[in-house]
Amino acid sequence: MGNIDLEFIKELSKTTPSKIVLLVVDGMGGLPDSRSGKTELETAVTPNLDALAQKSICGLSDPVSPGITAGSAPGHLALFGYDPVTYRIGRGALEAMGIDYPLQPGDIAARGNFCTIDKDGLITDRRAGRISTEESSKLCELLNNIKIDGVCFFALPVKDHRMALVLRGDGLSCQISDSDPQQTGMAALKVRAKISDAQKIADIVNKFLENARKILAAYSPANMLLLRGFDQKPQFPSMSEVYKLKPAAIASYPMYRGLARAVGMNILKTGLTIEDEIATLKENYKNYDFFFIHIKETDARGEDGDFTSKVKALEHVDKIIPEITALKPDVIVVTGDHSTPAMIKGHSWHPVPVLIYSEWCRADNVGQFNESACTSGGLGRIPATDIMPLAMANALKLNKYGA
Amino acid sequence: MGNIDLEFIKELSKTTPSKIVLLVVDGMGGLPDSRSGKTELETAVTPNLDALAQKSICGLSDPVSPGITAGSAPGHLALFGYDPVTYRIGRGALEAMGIDYPLQPGDIAARGNFCTIDKDGLITDRRAGRISTEESSKLCELLNNIKIDGVCFFALPVKDHRMALVLRGDGLSCQISDSDPQQTGMAALKVRAKISDAQKIADIVNKFLENARKILAAYSPANMLLLRGFDQKPQFPSMSEVYKLKPAAIASYPMYRGLARAVGMNILKTGLTIEDEIATLKENYKNYDFFFIHIKETDARGEDGDFTSKVKALEHVDKIIPEITALKPDVIVVTGDHSTPAMIKGHSWHPVPVLIYSEWCRADNVGQFNESACTSGGLGRIPATDIMPLAMANALKLNKYGA
Repeated sequence: MGNIDLEFIKELSKTTPSKIVLLVVDGMGGLPDSRSGKTELETAVTPNLDALAQKSICGLSDPVSPGITAGSAPGHLALFGYDPVTYRIGRGALEAMGIDYPLQPGDIAARGNFCTIDKDGLITDRRAGRISTEESSKLCELLNNIKIDGVCFFALPVKDHRMALVLRGDGLSCQISDSDPQQTGMAALKVRAKISDAQKIADIVNKFLENARKILAAYSPANMLLLRGFDQKPQFPSMSEVYKLKPAAIASYPMYRGLARAVGMNILKTGLTIEDEIATLKENYKNYDFFFIHIKETDARGEDGDFTSKVKALEHVDKIIPEITALKPDVIVVTGDHSTPAMIKGHSWHPVPVLIYSEWCRADNVGQFNESACTSGGLGRIPATDIMPLAMANALKLNKYGA
Repeated sequence: MGNIDLEFIKELSKTTPSKIVLLVVDGMGGLPDSRSGKTELETAVTPNLDALAQKSICGLSDPVSPGITAGSAPGHLALFGYDPVTYRIGRGALEAMGIDYPLQPGDIAARGNFCTIDKDGLITDRRAGRISTEESSKLCELLNNIKIDGVCFFALPVKDHRMALVLRGDGLSCQISDSDPQQTGMAALKVRAKISDAQKIADIVNKFLENARKILAAYSPANMLLLRGFDQKPQFPSMSEVYKLKPAAIASYPMYRGLARAVGMNILKTGLTIEDEIATLKENYKNYDFFFIHIKETDARGEDGDFTSKVKALEHVDKIIPEITALKPDVIVVTGDHSTPAMIKGHSWHPVPVLIYSEWCRADNVGQFNESACTSGGLGRIPATDIMPLAMANALKLNKYGA
């Protein structure tokens, strides 16, 4: 982002009645199928996105930097205008946010997993035979609400053997090491303080783990708990401070609600489908001036490596575009948080198509919304962190810089 | 500018006989007229600019960063290669520079306005009924050349009720607060020191304002003076240090001469028209190796919201291009300091067309000089601060970096 940071944008931003809709089609970018030579977006029939692209300025955006494959957290933070190299969310906090847990300021979170230990305490299975989420939930209940020396522990089931542990208390430090040795044949490690101020919390976590071992002893194969990635709830400036917006998030999946919460968005209750999300947008349209809508389906089909289903998911997204344009937002942004080519079955570094529609966008000659057409778009190739300043500019929500 | 700063360029720059002409067509970029779908530049008949573009490398440039609308000062500093977020010119200094006042190193300047106060000293009109520039000039004469404790005060009329105040003395600090409360119904504020070193100057300015109040008492409605935005003459490295150039500025409007002066250019005396400016270029062509030529008309017509007149102003610029090319400068740059679309009636964030002509430019396929054609130019979309290094390179004035 060069010298342009959130402080700079904060200096210039102002509240106006105009509205911005940011539609994030997760994992939108792709790679060509070897037979057709066309990407998922180039294969999909998307008349509504194409028509919108014709009235928009288009381009390609790099979530982090050329060549860097973004995870969901940096991909979204960049779209929200937060430099994802500066603004980091640690593993533990992300795990808790990913299950929609409302972390409070000062909370520490760690990623945990139930495991199997033998009679000598050595780890024989780091995943406890992949016990079900249901079993895991029962074990979490046993460990929940333990309080040691004024620190409260919340054990939260995630999926299968995975869980998150949240620590709440006064002045806690997250500068403690993992208990998870990340290999079998070893005993769980004692948690160590990385700085002297963290000694108290290290001792408390070790006490908690001794308790956990006693409680879990009867529940083999899940007879122990391993913890790693302790860190604090992220303390980022909120979007309402930076942009002076009243922002709302509409996301079916908890992880994305968690990311929106990290930048201070209001989280709107919604259902599981794209149609539910659009209904939520309509119901709440009057009450906010910025909407982040997250669509998961496209990324999931890319991760599956299912080219045809990803094409269908993109066509599904296309069908709801008229319902968004009918609301007449002043600015519409359509893009992804990263590419998820079916050919790669995972996130990739390829830059992501982006369109910005507004009355003032200075539309280019891009006639279709896909990777190759966007290459010659008027936006050029931009870092994803430029998208929010551009959306704000197009909404006439930024004052002039300098006289 | 990423990692490239003025120190870096200074390391590499060298003096050669080659010459660079930078033609700044103020507010050059625009937006399409809703009927024709064409911008001002796309509408204008500009055969000479188009012919030059065909021999040049073209692109679009962002004065500050995508989405940021630049004022004239940051827009020009960026074109001169000075990162406009790092190199800032405060309000007071800009006001003095804007009336062509040659600030000296160490000078402090403030923006002032004559106002009306009632018998209790409360402000009733912050603009003193918008007295004429003529009246304002007379009042400035009364306040001019006051000297208090070794500090000299120069009162300079600007326009209507607006004036600038310059303070000259040894070791002055500009870390003092405004006397202008920026609202009526209040008394003028005492100027306060923001740091302890500024106490002396705060006391002196307060004495000056007491004097001013006595002197102006008889001149209602302009019976008091308000001051704000105290700051120092900008102390930037000069273009001759950084680029080892002998630079000259040709600008009809005082503000742009002021900006050129801030980076150490020699200011050439010129007339009010574009033709006067070109005559000045010809007369002085032998004596300098860098020329900044500023054209105001285009921006003024954009600010007026007069699409047709802006088109004519661009066609006027086109007519003088052959007079510049006839001089055979080694490098010609044509661009703007920001966009001023007639549709917006003001500065905007849209990136600005830029062409760089030289024997070594590696011309692209851009056949016309306008926003949409430049989108596919070989320069791509660049920050405006890249333009000077590119001009220097094309003039073969930069040494190789590293072995």
